Amino acid sequence: MERKSKIEDARPEEVKPDETRESHRATRADVAKRAGVSETIVSYVVNDNRYVAKDKRERVKKAIEELNYHPNVIARALKKKTSKQILLITDIVLDEYFGEILYQLDKYAYDKGYLVSLCKYHNVDSYIGRVMNSQFDGIIINSAGFKTEYIRQIAGGGIPVVLFLSKKYGEIPKGVATIDSGLYDGVLKGLDLLWEKGARNIVYLAQTLKKSELNKDIRYLAFEEAGKRHGLSSKETLERTFVGFDEDLWQESFAKFLLDNPETDAIFARNDRLAATASKIVTNIGRRIPEDIMILGVDNSSISRLMTPSITTIEQQKEEMSKTAIELIENMNQGTKNLVPEELSKVFETRMIERESTKHKG
Amino acid sequence: MERKSKIEDARPEEVKPDETRESHRATRADVAKRAGVSETIVSYVVNDNRYVAKDKRERVKKAIEELNYHPNVIARALKKKTSKQILLITDIVLDEYFGEILYQLDKYAYDKGYLVSLCKYHNVDSYIGRVMNSQFDGIIINSAGFKTEYIRQIAGGGIPVVLFLSKKYGEIPKGVATIDSGLYDGVLKGLDLLWEKGARNIVYLAQTLKKSELNKDIRYLAFEEAGKRHGLSSKETLERTFVGFDEDLWQESFAKFLLDNPETDAIFARNDRLAATASKIVTNIGRRIPEDIMILGVDNSSISRLMTPSITTIEQQKEEMSKTAIELIENMNQGTKNLVPEELSKVFETRMIERESTKHKG
Repeated sequence: MERKSKIEDARPEEVKPDETRESHRATRADVAKRAGVSETIVSYVVNDNRYVAKDKRERVKKAIEELNYHPNVIARALKKKTSKQILLITDIVLDEYFGEILYQLDKYAYDKGYLVSLCKYHNVDSYIGRVMNSQFDGIIINSAGFKTEYIRQIAGGGIPVVLFLSKKYGEIPKGVATIDSGLYDGVLKGLDLLWEKGARNIVYLAQTLKKSELNKDIRYLAFEEAGKRHGLSSKETLERTFVGFDEDLWQESFAKFLLDNPETDAIFARNDRLAATASKIVTNIGRRIPEDIMILGVDNSSISRLMTPSITTIEQQKEEMSKTAIELIENMNQGTKNLVPEELSKVFETRMIERESTKHKG
Repeated sequence: MERKSKIEDARPEEVKPDETRESHRATRADVAKRAGVSETIVSYVVNDNRYVAKDKRERVKKAIEELNYHPNVIARALKKKTSKQILLITDIVLDEYFGEILYQLDKYAYDKGYLVSLCKYHNVDSYIGRVMNSQFDGIIINSAGFKTEYIRQIAGGGIPVVLFLSKKYGEIPKGVATIDSGLYDGVLKGLDLLWEKGARNIVYLAQTLKKSELNKDIRYLAFEEAGKRHGLSSKETLERTFVGFDEDLWQESFAKFLLDNPETDAIFARNDRLAATASKIVTNIGRRIPEDIMILGVDNSSISRLMTPSITTIEQQKEEMSKTAIELIENMNQGTKNLVPEELSKVFETRMIERESTKHKG
């Protein structure tokens, strides 16, 4: 690890060890000294809020440039009560879906002066403290694990909160804006498609969800409703739901599950990555896709296009939802507007993308 | 879009429209009033730095809880000169590789009290202003597009910067720490493997890189070096490099390129997603993997495991590199230590993962 980097042959020779850490952030006092004016004058120039004689102003500007001075914006943020930062919080940061949401949020927020960043959720009090203390201008929560009580605390603290309804919430805390992707209806339509194509024994692959979480899982609730429409009891629906416990071992158990339930003719996976994994497992046990088993995923991520056969998927309107999330935060921050609950609840529709994994002769 | 959400049936009825925005962040004055003490006493309790009589202290604590008061930490951060936030900046936020880096950074930084988040790079002055003004405790740059001049400005402003050497840098600004994943050597080894397995006409799939960026592209530089070792001129290496211009059309051009260059017997793609796309294209034009064309990617992302055939890839030590990045920021922030240039340059090694896409009878 202490070897010389082969691609970094140009670290300047003249840098002496004791120089490397000598740089410090230039202060207003440094600027004042170099420009030969008072700190108050520097302040006037920086904030552009009082008349300063032209020569003085130019000296200050020159000093600012030479010293690479950046006014302490924490102090200014204090005054303005805004740090112009929006935080997106998710359970999983590895997922292409969240990367796309971040990309779209940034696309709409950047021009309005915000920095948008993505952060992983931690289910502990100290996390909420850190988030609240960082004084974000808005928090966008797309995390099924996020405790409702924590959401209430953040919103109660006066920070605009936009909540993606990634699970069924018992109650939405006061003042919180919500975005419903329409996934419940989308899954119902997807399952209808599988039925039309001839599937009669559909399995829901929930993977790492716990059984106790199923009753809040939108995908499961839609799966249960679709089953009900075709005469399945809740118990039967549950029997057709595969919940893997171990991150590493579930693939083997799922192969076994498929062998033990040979009537299975379709798999609905909670996301495309799982759908791709299921597809690999199905092929490995010698079943054909879609002739023997059809596959349906969620997200329209690149893997669903790249797999052979390509995977039918339910796409959420990531761009439109992200744009709306930014607008909601802006409206909530302006505060002049009284947003009625209807204005805080946004509902979208999903889009189904049919591919090879469901081209069954129904 | 203004329809009622089906999964949000529990927005409390009793919330009147004009109540939704009335909540405000409780202030120290509010706490003082409710507890019947002075603001100074509240301050003492919050900071736990002076003696306060037990009954008063308890009244203050109760008021803090009831009002959901969070002390203004921007003000405290000012005093402490830290906001305890680390920002990871990347060009692309969609990539699984960056999600994994964020995950690993968070894993090591969270327990040290930091919030780590991921933000997209914008190549404009205003972006750097925003980043500097947000007073992060550390900036981790993993973006080949990031201008060296901007890195210099951030580091010159006194913010610890860790730079992942994702391209060949002409010069590393003073005081900036660097992380070299060892990819240059890793690619050389990967190309050696292809050669051993019998490949004599390897193509480098650079996709969206511009030709002018190739001379800073680590993968290309290693590709060129490997070619040189086997007697290829720089011109010949360049002819074996595919640069796609249009995000949507390059796949068709690459298929044409392969048909026009039927001697091609291996593809080295700059990342696994591209390798997977190349794999699909190769199959579509009727060539077999690995018998006709072998494929090598970079990242060990899930798609490389899931594709059929699975893809041989070069894995960077994402966890170790991330852990080191956090340690570097901590050391730079402590400032007590004089870090010599050697301590600021960390070099790692990659790991090759052989899969089906290179199982050629060489």
